[in-house]
Amino acid sequence: MRVLGVDPGLTRCGVGVVEGVAGRPLTMIAVGVVRTPADAELGQRLVAIEQGIEQWLDDHRPEYVAVERVFSQHNVRTVMGTAQASAVAMLCAARRGIPVALHTPSEVKAAVTGNGRADKAQVGAMVTRLLRLDAPPKPADAADALALAICHIWRAPAVNRLQQAHAAHRRDQLSSRKVTR
Amino acid sequence: MRVLGVDPGLTRCGVGVVEGVAGRPLTMIAVGVVRTPADAELGQRLVAIEQGIEQWLDDHRPEYVAVERVFSQHNVRTVMGTAQASAVAMLCAARRGIPVALHTPSEVKAAVTGNGRADKAQVGAMVTRLLRLDAPPKPADAADALALAICHIWRAPAVNRLQQAHAAHRRDQLSSRKVTR
Repeated sequence: MRVLGVDPGLTRCGVGVVEGVAGRPLTMIAVGVVRTPADAELGQRLVAIEQGIEQWLDDHRPEYVAVERVFSQHNVRTVMGTAQASAVAMLCAARRGIPVALHTPSEVKAAVTGNGRADKAQVGAMVTRLLRLDAPPKPADAADALALAICHIWRAPAVNRLQQAHAAHRRDQLSSRKVTR
Repeated sequence: MRVLGVDPGLTRCGVGVVEGVAGRPLTMIAVGVVRTPADAELGQRLVAIEQGIEQWLDDHRPEYVAVERVFSQHNVRTVMGTAQASAVAMLCAARRGIPVALHTPSEVKAAVTGNGRADKAQVGAMVTRLLRLDAPPKPADAADALALAICHIWRAPAVNRLQQAHAAHRRDQLSSRKVTR
């Protein structure tokens, strides 16, 4: 399974591609940052993010895109830009028919470090270890993007099982309704 | 001047095209709503909004796009979807090189009714009068989109004068620097 993780932001969008399956060693394919100039107009910045994400999708052909789920609670000043950058990333993936998964920051931290309230340094250290890198990826947005991709690979079996269980439950409900009719 | 106003939202994006210049009677070219199903995946909804906005840009060729500026203060539950829908509208316009202007809800209300705290009914009534319509456009999102377009046409001369003043000021600063060197 090849996953592009996106840590969305207007100034810096962290992007990282990881390949592997749960329970086996993972491989980092690429990591980087899509940047846009803070003094450009908002529309132009969104176009630049679109071009950057498109390039990453072209270059690495991921089967899934995992984007950080944005909450409006924390940091009200930057949250609008984060939401807008995440919208562009989701749009680029969905337009190509690539499934998009959203994971919260605490889900990502819990998946990678075992602690949903881990700090940036812990996340960076675990990403470095899990992908057998020489040093933590810089900036932190790039490490967070890899953590998102790892989280998706590890959570995917559980998420799929959950979806299958829901589907089975719905089928059971439908067949029991048929019986009672 | 032909302006497409966009009142962004995931479930309903109000869209309205108005033509005219400040100080002259205005003409409504078209009004409508781009809808996406609430039970679709977020990425798919953003793709549907993109297709809808593209269609409106193709059909009506506006020279400007005016989008409501989203604030994170009010209504935390829906603000993320609003921010994401607005990002798609801005992206579509900027990709074509169409200038995007953002106006706050109170700027729009003040421009159209003279009162920055006017309610939906007042805005609808003034839009109806200003565009010489038979009845207020429904739903309210459609009327709001027309109000945004009207606001942009009326504010544009002031905004342009302001930008020219800023540009002149920067030129003056540059030339005075050259002199002192």
